[in-house]
Amino acid sequence: MAVPIPKRHEKTGEEVQKYINSLTKPQGSLGRLEELAVELSKMTGEVFPVISPPGVIIFAADHGIASEGISAYPQEVTVQMVRNFLNGGAAINVFSRSICAKMCVVDIGMTSDIEHEQLKVKKVRYGTANFFNENAMSRDEAMKALEAGYEQAAKMISGGVKCLIPGEMGIGNTTASSAVTAAISGVSVEKLVGVGTGIEKEKIKYKQRIIQQALEKRKPKADDPIDVLSKVGGLEIAAMAGAMLASAANRTPILVDGFIAATAALVAKQISNNVTDYMIMGHCSVEPGHKIIMDLLGKKPLLDLQMRLGEGSGAAVAFPILQSAVLMLKEMATFESAQISDRE
Amino acid sequence: MAVPIPKRHEKTGEEVQKYINSLTKPQGSLGRLEELAVELSKMTGEVFPVISPPGVIIFAADHGIASEGISAYPQEVTVQMVRNFLNGGAAINVFSRSICAKMCVVDIGMTSDIEHEQLKVKKVRYGTANFFNENAMSRDEAMKALEAGYEQAAKMISGGVKCLIPGEMGIGNTTASSAVTAAISGVSVEKLVGVGTGIEKEKIKYKQRIIQQALEKRKPKADDPIDVLSKVGGLEIAAMAGAMLASAANRTPILVDGFIAATAALVAKQISNNVTDYMIMGHCSVEPGHKIIMDLLGKKPLLDLQMRLGEGSGAAVAFPILQSAVLMLKEMATFESAQISDRE
Repeated sequence: MAVPIPKRHEKTGEEVQKYINSLTKPQGSLGRLEELAVELSKMTGEVFPVISPPGVIIFAADHGIASEGISAYPQEVTVQMVRNFLNGGAAINVFSRSICAKMCVVDIGMTSDIEHEQLKVKKVRYGTANFFNENAMSRDEAMKALEAGYEQAAKMISGGVKCLIPGEMGIGNTTASSAVTAAISGVSVEKLVGVGTGIEKEKIKYKQRIIQQALEKRKPKADDPIDVLSKVGGLEIAAMAGAMLASAANRTPILVDGFIAATAALVAKQISNNVTDYMIMGHCSVEPGHKIIMDLLGKKPLLDLQMRLGEGSGAAVAFPILQSAVLMLKEMATFESAQISDRE
Repeated sequence: MAVPIPKRHEKTGEEVQKYINSLTKPQGSLGRLEELAVELSKMTGEVFPVISPPGVIIFAADHGIASEGISAYPQEVTVQMVRNFLNGGAAINVFSRSICAKMCVVDIGMTSDIEHEQLKVKKVRYGTANFFNENAMSRDEAMKALEAGYEQAAKMISGGVKCLIPGEMGIGNTTASSAVTAAISGVSVEKLVGVGTGIEKEKIKYKQRIIQQALEKRKPKADDPIDVLSKVGGLEIAAMAGAMLASAANRTPILVDGFIAATAALVAKQISNNVTDYMIMGHCSVEPGHKIIMDLLGKKPLLDLQMRLGEGSGAAVAFPILQSAVLMLKEMATFESAQISDRE
């Protein structure tokens, strides 16, 4: 699987940079908003990029590794939280509404079933296996999850979504993400593993040990992302990576959320290197692995609000900054149109 | 002048903190959004704080010190930019519209006059005097500017504004702000003075020297904010400080913009110490003095987007973060209402 990603429109970016310099403000004084406007122009190829409506796509799955007792919450919380998403009561619902996002929830592998007309059921299997004892899934299943993620995101984009926010729910997925990131990057588990969704300090060392031993047993191949996903990954991580590839293939900006989403970004980059050309990092999570991945991807986050929830929530909270960048470009007067003296 | 500032509702804050802990997310996982929600509750005394519509109030004035050649733009840009505000073409117009803010532009002391039905003319004098040679204004004028700022903000609040964003326009006002901050804080001019709105590096040393010499000649008294304003301040700085005092007196949160706004915050704090109880710092400017003032006030910014425009623009871009905090509180389900298992 190698997804062809189109090159960015560098020329459009240069044109937009020139135009930004004619707007009624000192050059460069809107800092990263100016950079973002240029980035979005390069991605979309549009002089006035359109990023609304954004689309929040949440992939939910369970993790066999959760039975090792590495999470602060019991596994049934995955399905309970998915019900909460479908009823509109979770953080991501609140933030999605406030940015007028389209939202889509996908069961890519929960251990139980929910019947709800808003839920897309693309279940690859009923949760991964416990990768401390065996491979999380087969190569074929990892590919199926990737492809389902790709398809669902492509559908949202063909349905009009102009900026993709991939989110997730899966008790145990910081553990799987840490394992995947360690396998791909070679960064030590000690550096990557932190508090997750609120695990106590004494449990962190245990979590690190479990992941370290699992990596030694499973031996995922750093240069084979499907191998890594199948051995120590998660279905929602695979699906998010697929969704990101679909977004980049369609020149649609991707607003990346926290540590799990960043892990999926790393996987996507292993599949098609220039997928990162279409990524903007929404925020910096308190999960230590998140900053490590952003450094590996050469990216800086927009927000640092000490969040660590997942679901796509940090990216959704960051979306208005993208809107500000786009509106600056579209609505500000130029020195000429406003008849203002330029620098002395 | 000492404005009585009501104490914050600590009890309401505690109640809200408890309620936040019952929402469907791991405790503390929304980081600063949770802190913000508690802060806003303490300020407003409301369990579900209302912060919309916000009100952007821009004070425009000119600075005699501009004739020392310390700014990147000629003085006539002040009045030209105010026309731009009135025509809706400036950055602050764009960002105000996107947060559905009420906006008010006040001529507190421009060197020329504009007739426009949207402009509030509260001109104290036609620009300050050049404080390199003489006091910027009289004590009486400084008081008048403070009071005008207070009145205009109080009017906006009685008109329904629920969160105040004070902004400014005045070529030369980073120089006046640096002088005021140095005078009040005792921090050296070298540490405070940076790029302003894009001044060249060789000019920075000149700007520092002008300010240093002016401070030696004018001898503003650190413990007398009116003395500092009258000797080396600006009319818009005084008016912004007054506006902040009005906001705090009315339990209305203040979203503070960049370096000039922070200087006004420092002045307001010298007048009534607990005005800072009602302040939230919107962003961190690249102007080095801004971080120094935030440290003095014991505050952390929400955004760090390398902005340095002023006008209230950074605060307006940060406002959606406050909205996210408020919506989290108002719209999220609780563990109980969503029937979700709490921690193991």
